[in-house]
Amino acid sequence: MKNVNTMDLSPAVVIGSGLIGASVGCAMTKAGIEVHLEDHNQSHAVVAATIGAGTVAPLAAEHVALVVVAVPPSALADVIAESLERFPRAIVTDVGSVKGTVVADLRRRHLDLSRYVGSHPMAGSQHSGPLTAHADLFVDRTWVLTPHDTSRAQAVLVVQALARICRARILTMGAAHHDEAVAQVSHVPQLLSSLMGGHLLNVPNEHLRLAGQGLRDVVRIAASDPAMWQQIIAANATAIKAELLEIADDLNALLGVLDDPAEVAQFLTRGKKGTELLPGKHGAAPEEFSRVVVVIPDAPGALAALFRDIEAAGVNIEDLDIEHVPDRALGFLSVQVANNRARELSDVMQASGWEVRR
Amino acid sequence: MKNVNTMDLSPAVVIGSGLIGASVGCAMTKAGIEVHLEDHNQSHAVVAATIGAGTVAPLAAEHVALVVVAVPPSALADVIAESLERFPRAIVTDVGSVKGTVVADLRRRHLDLSRYVGSHPMAGSQHSGPLTAHADLFVDRTWVLTPHDTSRAQAVLVVQALARICRARILTMGAAHHDEAVAQVSHVPQLLSSLMGGHLLNVPNEHLRLAGQGLRDVVRIAASDPAMWQQIIAANATAIKAELLEIADDLNALLGVLDDPAEVAQFLTRGKKGTELLPGKHGAAPEEFSRVVVVIPDAPGALAALFRDIEAAGVNIEDLDIEHVPDRALGFLSVQVANNRARELSDVMQASGWEVRR
Repeated sequence: MKNVNTMDLSPAVVIGSGLIGASVGCAMTKAGIEVHLEDHNQSHAVVAATIGAGTVAPLAAEHVALVVVAVPPSALADVIAESLERFPRAIVTDVGSVKGTVVADLRRRHLDLSRYVGSHPMAGSQHSGPLTAHADLFVDRTWVLTPHDTSRAQAVLVVQALARICRARILTMGAAHHDEAVAQVSHVPQLLSSLMGGHLLNVPNEHLRLAGQGLRDVVRIAASDPAMWQQIIAANATAIKAELLEIADDLNALLGVLDDPAEVAQFLTRGKKGTELLPGKHGAAPEEFSRVVVVIPDAPGALAALFRDIEAAGVNIEDLDIEHVPDRALGFLSVQVANNRARELSDVMQASGWEVRR
Repeated sequence: MKNVNTMDLSPAVVIGSGLIGASVGCAMTKAGIEVHLEDHNQSHAVVAATIGAGTVAPLAAEHVALVVVAVPPSALADVIAESLERFPRAIVTDVGSVKGTVVADLRRRHLDLSRYVGSHPMAGSQHSGPLTAHADLFVDRTWVLTPHDTSRAQAVLVVQALARICRARILTMGAAHHDEAVAQVSHVPQLLSSLMGGHLLNVPNEHLRLAGQGLRDVVRIAASDPAMWQQIIAANATAIKAELLEIADDLNALLGVLDDPAEVAQFLTRGKKGTELLPGKHGAAPEEFSRVVVVIPDAPGALAALFRDIEAAGVNIEDLDIEHVPDRALGFLSVQVANNRARELSDVMQASGWEVRR
């Protein structure tokens, strides 16, 4: 097993020049890899080439080192199988959002799958097509690798190298495990967003003028491409159904207690607690942040002076809160920063004369 | 009935110095109005004063021209009734998110309500408290006025002037009508967001590492203050229940057809269509945009040159799409711009030698 360098991925072929395929192409091209773009619809490949995702020039199949299959979910198994045959030396991966059904389908074909490793970059947008593609789409996003039991180790290393070139965070898990996770954090949220979006068709136009950012956020992903999502949901229907049944139970329970303020408060508190479980910005875990607590003196302008000194400390503030003390005007300012900056902020603030508590 | 000038609103009292109250205070202070801040929790008023929302100095109640009641929903009716008594010359408004129950409660007290006009600025955030307040919170947001049948015309004009000072877009409707609308576009989305947020408590931590921006958007408002939302939901439970029952029916219907790709596609398409009904950026209606369609020549670099010329035209692009033509590499570039800029973009592009279609 040899070390994998960027140039070991060259030349590469990206099949499917939509948002994900073209963005992978841009990132690889930027890294110096020779990228050949293909698409069922040749015009997509031409557009992708225009924005720097690679070239549409022909290439010698026997030299190809890596094939990235970025086609719609229903075509994945066919194109992966074809690619293993067309490119006899290439490592083949795909970027599909459901992994179990694809591997199962490939296995039924009795192919040698040692050069195939599935993967799933957790990035995208409600936009589709190559026009919105860019090399930085995957920066700091999670890129899941789902090797199967016959994947060659070298193949895993090559796909890891691809994810690293795209500057993503690599996470390795089994296909079934992955599919349950995406049902929970991606497919069910998509369906709830579409549920809310569909309900807007019953709402009078004049009422929609009262819509604020909250509604817009909830329904943003409902604007995604129905044709693609229909395929994703079909490929992961079993895992999705299990989650959605629980959601439906919770919704029915809420309907039963809507007149009971204590029960409604509990429901809302559960919702808030759930959001607090989500990893922080750029996938950092919440425990990667610490709180630095500064006493706010009972003096005019104290808070403004405090903010000025925190800013001068040059530490990125993730969140802040004022904790009130009943018998004083203000109390404590609680500042959340990255773990590795907490000590520094604490020291700087103390040096500037503030009273700091941990 | 006299014309209302900004100074006719001075001095003003803002009761409740949370995010909304403090932001209204900031906007009024910026406009030159003398603003006195009160809060059940004096420290909130002190913080609000620190960030420029007004002063906590005492004032002569008989001179007050305007009272803005920005307290939690369950305290609204009491504080509005008290304010009408404490400030005998003042126009009184509130910024509560439910209007019908408050007016009904006030009516049961047999008060003279001619100086009261309800209002609801459609702005906010999952954050609360005066620290996140700012004078621009309401810019281009909808501000609903809900005059009742005994509201004095002068009172309506004063509250309109307040909304204009905050640079909001004014919309006038009856209280019941308003409450149905906010159930549809605000309260039900809040509950669906909390439903999804609460479900995350059942999801293994490792799976949450796969969470992307889509989930984050869906659950963003679930992080809102449960204590405040519990009061809003209690005040509007009837309208919310009607909507939520329809949502539950739609969810159960989806569960029944999850294995049928055509039905799932239809469900997703409905969701997408719903999002398209939402007014555009900053509350502009979708029909305020026009499409300018430019033919993309079959030549290398044509698309890049086209983008360069559109950028040089200096017209804000709201959205763009490539429309493919089967027997050509590319086709048409469709650019969406504000109605009043479409003619200009079209002229500039033609002058630069591009073929434009309407």
